[in-house]
Amino acid sequence: MTGFSFELNATDGAARTGVIRTPRGEVRTPAFMPVGTAATVKAMLPESVAATGADILLGNTYHLMLRPTAERIANLGGLHKFMNWEKPILTDSGGFQVMSLAGLRKLTEEGVRFSSHIDGSKHMLTPERSMEVQKLLGSDIVMCFDECPALPADRARIAESMALSMRWAARSRDAFGDRPGHALFGIQQGGLEEDLRAESAEALVDISFDGYAVGGLAVGEGQEAMFGVLDYAPGMLPQDKPRYLMGVGKPDDIVGAVKRGIDMMDCVLPSRSGRTGQAFTRRGVVNIKNARHADDPRPLDEACGCPACTGYSRAYLHHVFRAGEMISGMLLTWHNLRYYQDLMAEMRAAIAAGTFEAFETAFHGRRAEGDIEPI
Amino acid sequence: MTGFSFELNATDGAARTGVIRTPRGEVRTPAFMPVGTAATVKAMLPESVAATGADILLGNTYHLMLRPTAERIANLGGLHKFMNWEKPILTDSGGFQVMSLAGLRKLTEEGVRFSSHIDGSKHMLTPERSMEVQKLLGSDIVMCFDECPALPADRARIAESMALSMRWAARSRDAFGDRPGHALFGIQQGGLEEDLRAESAEALVDISFDGYAVGGLAVGEGQEAMFGVLDYAPGMLPQDKPRYLMGVGKPDDIVGAVKRGIDMMDCVLPSRSGRTGQAFTRRGVVNIKNARHADDPRPLDEACGCPACTGYSRAYLHHVFRAGEMISGMLLTWHNLRYYQDLMAEMRAAIAAGTFEAFETAFHGRRAEGDIEPI
Repeated sequence: MTGFSFELNATDGAARTGVIRTPRGEVRTPAFMPVGTAATVKAMLPESVAATGADILLGNTYHLMLRPTAERIANLGGLHKFMNWEKPILTDSGGFQVMSLAGLRKLTEEGVRFSSHIDGSKHMLTPERSMEVQKLLGSDIVMCFDECPALPADRARIAESMALSMRWAARSRDAFGDRPGHALFGIQQGGLEEDLRAESAEALVDISFDGYAVGGLAVGEGQEAMFGVLDYAPGMLPQDKPRYLMGVGKPDDIVGAVKRGIDMMDCVLPSRSGRTGQAFTRRGVVNIKNARHADDPRPLDEACGCPACTGYSRAYLHHVFRAGEMISGMLLTWHNLRYYQDLMAEMRAAIAAGTFEAFETAFHGRRAEGDIEPI
Repeated sequence: MTGFSFELNATDGAARTGVIRTPRGEVRTPAFMPVGTAATVKAMLPESVAATGADILLGNTYHLMLRPTAERIANLGGLHKFMNWEKPILTDSGGFQVMSLAGLRKLTEEGVRFSSHIDGSKHMLTPERSMEVQKLLGSDIVMCFDECPALPADRARIAESMALSMRWAARSRDAFGDRPGHALFGIQQGGLEEDLRAESAEALVDISFDGYAVGGLAVGEGQEAMFGVLDYAPGMLPQDKPRYLMGVGKPDDIVGAVKRGIDMMDCVLPSRSGRTGQAFTRRGVVNIKNARHADDPRPLDEACGCPACTGYSRAYLHHVFRAGEMISGMLLTWHNLRYYQDLMAEMRAAIAAGTFEAFETAFHGRRAEGDIEPI
């Protein structure tokens, strides 16, 4: 596809580092994508998100199609201009969030009919409508519309769901058409069933996509089961295309996923935790609301270069959290996003240097010591 | 006083422009001081507050002495370090806010006994304790502890209150002592009574302060009555010291106060309005929640250089306000603080050029036209 490409620069075991090139800029992989659900990464200005080291954001089709609507965003020049973010944007298909509306949605071969959580208005999402919405938003990386059961689920349910997702993948591919500079990613399903994962990968490769997601994980199965799937699932996908693990995760989830060959991830955890007073640091999680921080003059993380760590004590961060001040969420979100981006940069360097195993040992080791709360 | 000085550079009618010099930097006057109640200007990082053009912040003694406590802030290196603001800070005395705790406080000659609004704990504020707290905070400009009735109030009540405030002013002066580089300001009282204002000014000048505030206004009397007092009150205070109008106000209040010889002001209005979706612009107030903005691609204020105006449409600002996103308060607060600082800069330039009357005509004129809501 013109204007969209993936270059693999180095591997270390299954771990990979490279670069995705788009007309809106490069994405260094492995990449972590902050989540900008409603056209904003909560508590952050977009220039601050970029300053953390993020090359790409994720936007949520479900939320944006309901408010302010994709048509309105298109009329205003697209999502990039609307939210003042010039770098690449990946949008999900809306499928995952629509499926989460238990009781408010009806699934058919055609798609999903659902009621808005905002005003109860009725909507229909299909592969075709999802492609249309993501085009209206102007997203650089478009995701197929798929279906995904929560785990545990029985094999028949998973197989049926996967087959439906593969039919929807073909319809997504047809509806997407040819859009130079924009990419369409397929999504592998199959739960924890290796043969279904293989079948799904084969179906997707037959259709042919610009990248492939490992879907249907981080939905209740636990880290061990997820890593079990990641031991084989990425290897079923083309080596020369980016591989995206959706909705993951905690720092050690991310390290384990990269180790197993994942190139892209997204998660609300760093931003959501920032607003609830949890900070990720090189030595574990700090719960800033704990009284032990009230007189502590030290920064959250001595090794971090973010504004929260270079400008403020834990005592200050504790104070503003307790006082309910917005700066608490602003600073901790910034810190957490910077922590995640620093982690990605460290992994990219380790893979390029062929030292990923040493990195991983150090990562787990430094989190085990420490005067602060373990994750 | 060593290290603290005021230089008057130009006058235009009663309006004045100059500079306050402190060891922490210069304050260009007329100056607007954003309010950082709980060691943060709500929804702003301090570097962003500085970027709006603010030379000085106001901190609230009442809030800080209760949480996190002045002693804790002192142990952590003072308020500047605590909140990461290196420029000058003015702190109020705590008096005004304690007096507002109707039913929760008891006034005597000694001071005010009150219960914390946070946890009900008992505290006492006296002139001596207020000086101690403000010293612990490390504020650059310390305010006398005073008492101030809401208006309207009868003359006897105002006279009695003013006399008490003058006795407290003398005790504040004694307790403040000699602190090179730090200033103590007296506060004129007397309500709307010209002779009481004169008596108060005389008492304060006898005690001798580094600056003088016009207190007891913006407490319910209305703009006309306030301007009535400002027609004479600033002239009763020394020409060679800064004059501070406390708790004011709307943009047209500020223009009217500067016209009448005021050098410093503070108000929560720009930051509070920012969080409730009101934006001050050169053509009036924009209520961003109104549906009319939903599709409007224009910036809030074409002439404004703040991030909200250079990066976003009214449609975006409307969307994030409706969605309850923190970026709404962040951007609108930044805009409002920038608007206020731009207004001060414009007035300083007009006074220096001897064109304040033309400025004032233009200010009122451009706010009368327009496609947006009048103030």
